[in-house]
Amino acid sequence: MIVNQQHFRTIWPDFSANQPLVNIIDQTRLPHAFVVEDVQTLMQMEHAIKTMQVRGAPLIGVAAAYGMALATLHEVDDQALQFAARTLLASRPTAVNLAWAVKRMLDKLAQLPLNARRDAAWAEAAAIADEDVALNQAIGRNGLALIQAMYQRKQRPLNILTHCNAGWLATVDYGTALSPIYAAYDAGLQVHVWVDETRPRNQGASLTAWELAQHGVPHTVISDNAGGHLMQQGEVDMVLVGADRVSRNGDVCNKIGTYLKALAAHDSAAYGHEIPFYAAVPSPTIDWQISDGVQQIEIEERHADELAWMSGQLPSGEIVSVNVLPKGTRVANPAFDVTPARLVSAIITECGVYAPHAVSTMQR
Amino acid sequence: MIVNQQHFRTIWPDFSANQPLVNIIDQTRLPHAFVVEDVQTLMQMEHAIKTMQVRGAPLIGVAAAYGMALATLHEVDDQALQFAARTLLASRPTAVNLAWAVKRMLDKLAQLPLNARRDAAWAEAAAIADEDVALNQAIGRNGLALIQAMYQRKQRPLNILTHCNAGWLATVDYGTALSPIYAAYDAGLQVHVWVDETRPRNQGASLTAWELAQHGVPHTVISDNAGGHLMQQGEVDMVLVGADRVSRNGDVCNKIGTYLKALAAHDSAAYGHEIPFYAAVPSPTIDWQISDGVQQIEIEERHADELAWMSGQLPSGEIVSVNVLPKGTRVANPAFDVTPARLVSAIITECGVYAPHAVSTMQR
Repeated sequence: MIVNQQHFRTIWPDFSANQPLVNIIDQTRLPHAFVVEDVQTLMQMEHAIKTMQVRGAPLIGVAAAYGMALATLHEVDDQALQFAARTLLASRPTAVNLAWAVKRMLDKLAQLPLNARRDAAWAEAAAIADEDVALNQAIGRNGLALIQAMYQRKQRPLNILTHCNAGWLATVDYGTALSPIYAAYDAGLQVHVWVDETRPRNQGASLTAWELAQHGVPHTVISDNAGGHLMQQGEVDMVLVGADRVSRNGDVCNKIGTYLKALAAHDSAAYGHEIPFYAAVPSPTIDWQISDGVQQIEIEERHADELAWMSGQLPSGEIVSVNVLPKGTRVANPAFDVTPARLVSAIITECGVYAPHAVSTMQR
Repeated sequence: MIVNQQHFRTIWPDFSANQPLVNIIDQTRLPHAFVVEDVQTLMQMEHAIKTMQVRGAPLIGVAAAYGMALATLHEVDDQALQFAARTLLASRPTAVNLAWAVKRMLDKLAQLPLNARRDAAWAEAAAIADEDVALNQAIGRNGLALIQAMYQRKQRPLNILTHCNAGWLATVDYGTALSPIYAAYDAGLQVHVWVDETRPRNQGASLTAWELAQHGVPHTVISDNAGGHLMQQGEVDMVLVGADRVSRNGDVCNKIGTYLKALAAHDSAAYGHEIPFYAAVPSPTIDWQISDGVQQIEIEERHADELAWMSGQLPSGEIVSVNVLPKGTRVANPAFDVTPARLVSAIITECGVYAPHAVSTMQR
């Protein structure tokens, strides 16, 4: 990822001091300020995940792995590791990567003698981070093939709609949904991205728009309400999103509002458009335990304040939060929804591009 | 309409001073402040419509009629009236009521001698306002019948989802989509309203939530993204919206995002739910010239600042605007979309409840 012409990851360990620590980009400060923060303890990492200083399913997994590594700085016995795992698992219930990464760390460490656990924890977290980067690069290559095929067919710039942030910032690097878009841009294809604002936390407006701008990819921010109209009018060629969890039957759990965009992409056939709906997901995002995403995936209900208070920048440059609701208004804030497999054209993974009902055929 | 236990309309003339003027509720100040403003000239009324101090298709029509009346305070010849008409017509292109009201004023005044025009203009504007109130009461009765029928069948509190503001504040009184809801509440039926935030101008969060609270109707604000998930989970019994324009084939042009909710209501059948999608519209909102709403209705593109800047209240009480986008971000802001008749269960008018394809059978 490029920030102000410099290469960054979203999370990296720092061994230069007495005690190892973990650096993260504080995503709650973007797009107005680019701030790198030290995370020194398990509880600080839990806080960073819960408050979404780090967010995005793949990054949450890596952050949790480093949270386990931070825990080993103090205690390495089974009880301490179990406590760390429980703490991290409770911080965000929907992201399957979190559970996957925590379990991988536990499985790795449990088999080792106590005095080998600390070094192994830092090595394993680093391995998970490096694997995420490699997965995302592979997703980029596989998704690029789809974009190239459409580009050759249409022979004009392509408009790709995305929801939420499934870019660099949601991963360690490259992104999931945005990885094919960066690959297409870097390959010289003309792409333009419709960026859904993504209420209530505005990840599209504040994060996706910011990182696309840093990379130079043309883009336009729209309200979450606008995508249906744009698809009906043929102004969208493809919908490309990430996912927080995919069931083994191909249902895609992603940021609230994704399902509505999938419905509109599907309905565009009534107007003579054919708009594929793709989810780009590394395989750790697939939950092999779940056979019916709509029925079985627990949807995280987040705090009312996310809707009631908006963070932004005053003309003076100061960043403040303002209340946009009448005092005392009741709010519901489900954070995710599930797009049924029947509305999904394909699932782009590091292993290839799967029909949603064929996800279970993946080599693993 | 009730504000702080007092009865109000959204617009009313005041003849107590030397020169007549028009009072409006400044809706850009809600929900944080309830401010009544004097409008004294045609150009002030044009400004009030353009900046959405008054908004909502029916209210815009009445405001335009009073704009014509204000114009007659200075000049009453045909040329002056035509200028006033053109000025008002250009202020908001989508609302058919505006064109309808302006034409009605012109037709009425053109046939009168110059010295009778001023009084006739004020009388005609008042008649249009009174008719709007009567229409909305009739819509309330007709929509109430639908809610009562569902209430008797389901025998439990009903959850009604609405988008944007089609309440008191969008009309002179009672509202369109909210009129049946107020009627149901007043009749003792248990109703709960899901209020879409309605980005980018937040009419749901700031206006619908406010007026439902003033009337005492239980409600919950949600992001525009949440409705699909709630419908999929069976937490919505009915979608009830207003409209800015309805074509004679029953296509419903309403606030951007409405089409996505209609898609979700339709798709809910796949989960065993049957969620009707109703549009409540006074007959002046029907555009008899338009036979295909999706193809023919011009969609107003509004300013990027509506998305880039959010108005809200600081903890200190001060109302400010904050920028929520990276500097220089490109924005697209279509203000309306068109829900095709095939997704509309019925259109509730003052004349009765019509199947969307049978709107053209309306007595008129």
